[in-house]
Amino acid sequence: MSDLSALAHRALEIAGEKNLSIVTAESCTAGKLAALLSEAPGAAERLHGSFVTYTKANKPRALGIPTSLLQDKGAVCRDVAAAMAKAALTRSPADVAVSITGVAGPDPDEDGNPVGRVCIGLARAGTTRGLEYNYGKLEREAVQARAMTDALTLLVAMLEEC
Amino acid sequence: MSDLSALAHRALEIAGEKNLSIVTAESCTAGKLAALLSEAPGAAERLHGSFVTYTKANKPRALGIPTSLLQDKGAVCRDVAAAMAKAALTRSPADVAVSITGVAGPDPDEDGNPVGRVCIGLARAGTTRGLEYNYGKLEREAVQARAMTDALTLLVAMLEEC
Repeated sequence: MSDLSALAHRALEIAGEKNLSIVTAESCTAGKLAALLSEAPGAAERLHGSFVTYTKANKPRALGIPTSLLQDKGAVCRDVAAAMAKAALTRSPADVAVSITGVAGPDPDEDGNPVGRVCIGLARAGTTRGLEYNYGKLEREAVQARAMTDALTLLVAMLEEC
Repeated sequence: MSDLSALAHRALEIAGEKNLSIVTAESCTAGKLAALLSEAPGAAERLHGSFVTYTKANKPRALGIPTSLLQDKGAVCRDVAAAMAKAALTRSPADVAVSITGVAGPDPDEDGNPVGRVCIGLARAGTTRGLEYNYGKLEREAVQARAMTDALTLLVAMLEEC
């Protein structure tokens, strides 16, 4: 089993122990995080799904992210990551949400964020966080894998705190 | 390039020629269709994302699928597939939507639908369709691959008609 699969299994395992359910919100991973979590035992009951908002234009429509926030700070920032996680929580039956927005490459984004910059959001009732990571100019799949590893690590830690 | 990747490339190619954009709604593929489409050239502009509604409970919350429809017909039927595609169109800026809801296995679903039964929905302005496929008791990944192949074939045909 890969490290990523092991982390996904661990997230679903804790969710099962604590009777919690999960949703994701994804931009640069385009659904890969939800697909990964769906392969873990227990996902049918504890993974509600994902809001994949790949374009900037879809973030206000599908998740209600304020257009003013996207205009002021771009789509890759801690505030947008936090807002995506919070919106996914609000628009699903899930207890915890994790989000990823970043630049997987091969090109920088329209706001000038470099390849490898990724923000991860976390939300549960009453608590929302956003974190920034800079992985450097890696290949597209490597950026996505690093982002999913960090997102799942943070998700596992949040589930353990619940 | 795999047949699936070639179909995804073709979908984005036609979308580019016709200035159209795409959204997906996914249950049993859990985001894999959006992730596949995101790897094709042009996806950054023409793939808005996906509504991944993996649990039955998330379909009303994230997509507004009527609870009465899910209770009467289960989550795997042509009407739910069509409603998922239509809702994804309504809740995103996309011009066309394709949806997948089915039983990837290894177990039948809670409504008694067998492994390998998949319904695919299509929506564009003024037109919504739902189709049913029965692939038989294949492995989970094989059901998902068959479903994505049929969904992309139908998406390409719809884009060509636009």
